[in-house]
Amino acid sequence: MKMNFSSFANRIVGQSMFKILAAAQEIERTGKKLIHFEIGDTHLEMPDIVKDAAIKSLKAGRTHYGPSIGEFSLRSAIVNVIKEDYGFTPDISQIAVASGANPLIYYIISILVNPGEEIIITDPAFVTYNAVFNMLRIKGVYVPVGYHDGFRFSPAEIAKRINKKTRCIIINSPQNPTGAVYSERDIRAIYALAKKHGLYIISDEIYSSLIYEGTHFSAGTLDKCRERVIITQGFSKPFAMTGWRVGYAVGPQAIIEKISLLSQTIVSCVPPFLQDACVLALDNRKKLVKGYRIEYKKLRDVACHELAKAKNLSFSKPAGAFYLFIDVSKTGMDGDAFAKLLIEKASVVVCPGSGFGVAGKSYVRICYARNQDELVRGCAAIARIAG
Amino acid sequence: MKMNFSSFANRIVGQSMFKILAAAQEIERTGKKLIHFEIGDTHLEMPDIVKDAAIKSLKAGRTHYGPSIGEFSLRSAIVNVIKEDYGFTPDISQIAVASGANPLIYYIISILVNPGEEIIITDPAFVTYNAVFNMLRIKGVYVPVGYHDGFRFSPAEIAKRINKKTRCIIINSPQNPTGAVYSERDIRAIYALAKKHGLYIISDEIYSSLIYEGTHFSAGTLDKCRERVIITQGFSKPFAMTGWRVGYAVGPQAIIEKISLLSQTIVSCVPPFLQDACVLALDNRKKLVKGYRIEYKKLRDVACHELAKAKNLSFSKPAGAFYLFIDVSKTGMDGDAFAKLLIEKASVVVCPGSGFGVAGKSYVRICYARNQDELVRGCAAIARIAG
Repeated sequence: MKMNFSSFANRIVGQSMFKILAAAQEIERTGKKLIHFEIGDTHLEMPDIVKDAAIKSLKAGRTHYGPSIGEFSLRSAIVNVIKEDYGFTPDISQIAVASGANPLIYYIISILVNPGEEIIITDPAFVTYNAVFNMLRIKGVYVPVGYHDGFRFSPAEIAKRINKKTRCIIINSPQNPTGAVYSERDIRAIYALAKKHGLYIISDEIYSSLIYEGTHFSAGTLDKCRERVIITQGFSKPFAMTGWRVGYAVGPQAIIEKISLLSQTIVSCVPPFLQDACVLALDNRKKLVKGYRIEYKKLRDVACHELAKAKNLSFSKPAGAFYLFIDVSKTGMDGDAFAKLLIEKASVVVCPGSGFGVAGKSYVRICYARNQDELVRGCAAIARIAG
Repeated sequence: MKMNFSSFANRIVGQSMFKILAAAQEIERTGKKLIHFEIGDTHLEMPDIVKDAAIKSLKAGRTHYGPSIGEFSLRSAIVNVIKEDYGFTPDISQIAVASGANPLIYYIISILVNPGEEIIITDPAFVTYNAVFNMLRIKGVYVPVGYHDGFRFSPAEIAKRINKKTRCIIINSPQNPTGAVYSERDIRAIYALAKKHGLYIISDEIYSSLIYEGTHFSAGTLDKCRERVIITQGFSKPFAMTGWRVGYAVGPQAIIEKISLLSQTIVSCVPPFLQDACVLALDNRKKLVKGYRIEYKKLRDVACHELAKAKNLSFSKPAGAFYLFIDVSKTGMDGDAFAKLLIEKASVVVCPGSGFGVAGKSYVRICYARNQDELVRGCAAIARIAG
């Protein structure tokens, strides 16, 4: 029987990272050991006190359906985080919990943007954005950025691309895959553009606790998430809880209601016993997050030190997140060819930058949230191959 | 700022059950206690050995990202279940894990059916189906069923509704909200129709372990899930793990691949430490599921005994799931009015049947997976009000 898919199904594309993973696994089947720098996950473990809280709640039977918008207790804790860390107090109706920050990208874009309409975003950008644009037939309008401009789009470049079809600007600070952190001045200018043209801002702040120089400024503080800014946030990156799949959105109440209805239709709810433990993570966030930040900063510096030895690698020290986005064009190769060579000659797996957008073609991404010994060995090998 | 949603957002409808819940909560705020028969969840707790397995895996650090198609170990355990319980051995590439069986409804329908195309299903049917049809602009083609025909659609009625736009038939046996269980003969006849007309069958078997008379027959056995049948299944109902959000699909490899890509784009993965525990649940399924089945059967009989005292209530004893779908038309009221009266006069909350489809208008649904004392009190009150 010939499979007959919907046109939607034909627009579902995988993440190109998985192609490089498949190639890596083929080599590993021959018995060769590889160093993995490709996945955006961390070598560090989540906090034991958060595990303990989950165990307690699991034993207490918090294993039944809960509200699709999220547990009241976790939503209250999130209100408190925004109050203390962002300086404004959202109404609890402005908070929805979801199965990670990633589903929120799909939910929010499908709620706000019609097929054929436009979203302004950097190129390169986090892979889920492109995947969602494709699926929903939304036009991503890209501002190419590179290591020389710190991978940040300027308000002037955004302004040039706004037209009647523009619905939304996506700010991801600190950014995956580049580690770029936006200044308060730029974010205020982008917000002013959004306000002038009646646009929404999706502010993807999943790496906001991982800033090594400077401070985090959220567009959400400018309208208290009441008009046009929707913050997406989660537990994966701040607390090394990538496999937990818990995230949240802070935004205008009407949008939060739609997110909740869509959650209800798709996943029903997020496990209540996991949400209970997330309350504890938030209550202890300052202490918990600091430990991870210190460690990643050290690893960033170690990786930069090793990679700087290669004259053919161009990069700037990223101020946030846990990635390095490295221009390899001086090697005479593009990112795909360089990544392929790295697996074969250095047993190191990295992400080709092309997976993050056309402007990433001459780059590779490494995730430096790795054991230090492995990181040094891997980066030394990359530098050696690059020359 | 006026919120400007996408047309998709305007098609996201909530579940009507939540309206009755809101009314109930308003009454509870006055201090009055209510008996809740509306939610499709159970009073029983999940097995301790499954909790223990999750705790062990959580402590072992299985808290990082995993493959979006599901852990190899859980997918292997599912292969084994199908082999032992269904009599055929699917390839592991025919198995995908998801965040519950519910998201699979959205994933599979969006993958197989275009806007404007048609799916044949009973009226009444589980609420997520209608919600998904609405969102995706798919035409649900309904076969009305009632308590007199055992709430089962006949192959002849299905055949009448097949045309060039038909893409899929949904079989949900045992069924929510009616408890109907399909015979092998009917399922074979429906499968023959699907084969003749090149249609897919979504076989929603989430209640398959809760059959009190007769046996479960899966359409999946007819093509070994290789051509046109996709089974959706989960842990929520068989193991009282509703809040865990783990489910799976067995289907043709090409469809499973698309499900995996969509999972990857939306939720990334299902928590690995929860999947590890699900392996243990499956390995011990015969023993674990039997305990729940015996308890629900007893409760079904208790509820039927009480409700049979009312001459104005019409229902047949359901062979599966944990619901009673009761025709209240002899009371002179429709299901909505009767449900409203029940809250006010008997402090009992039930689901109006209208939420499950037009043909459910004169019905109410109760979930009898409740503490026996409460069940007897609630059913006696319903019978008294009905007269």
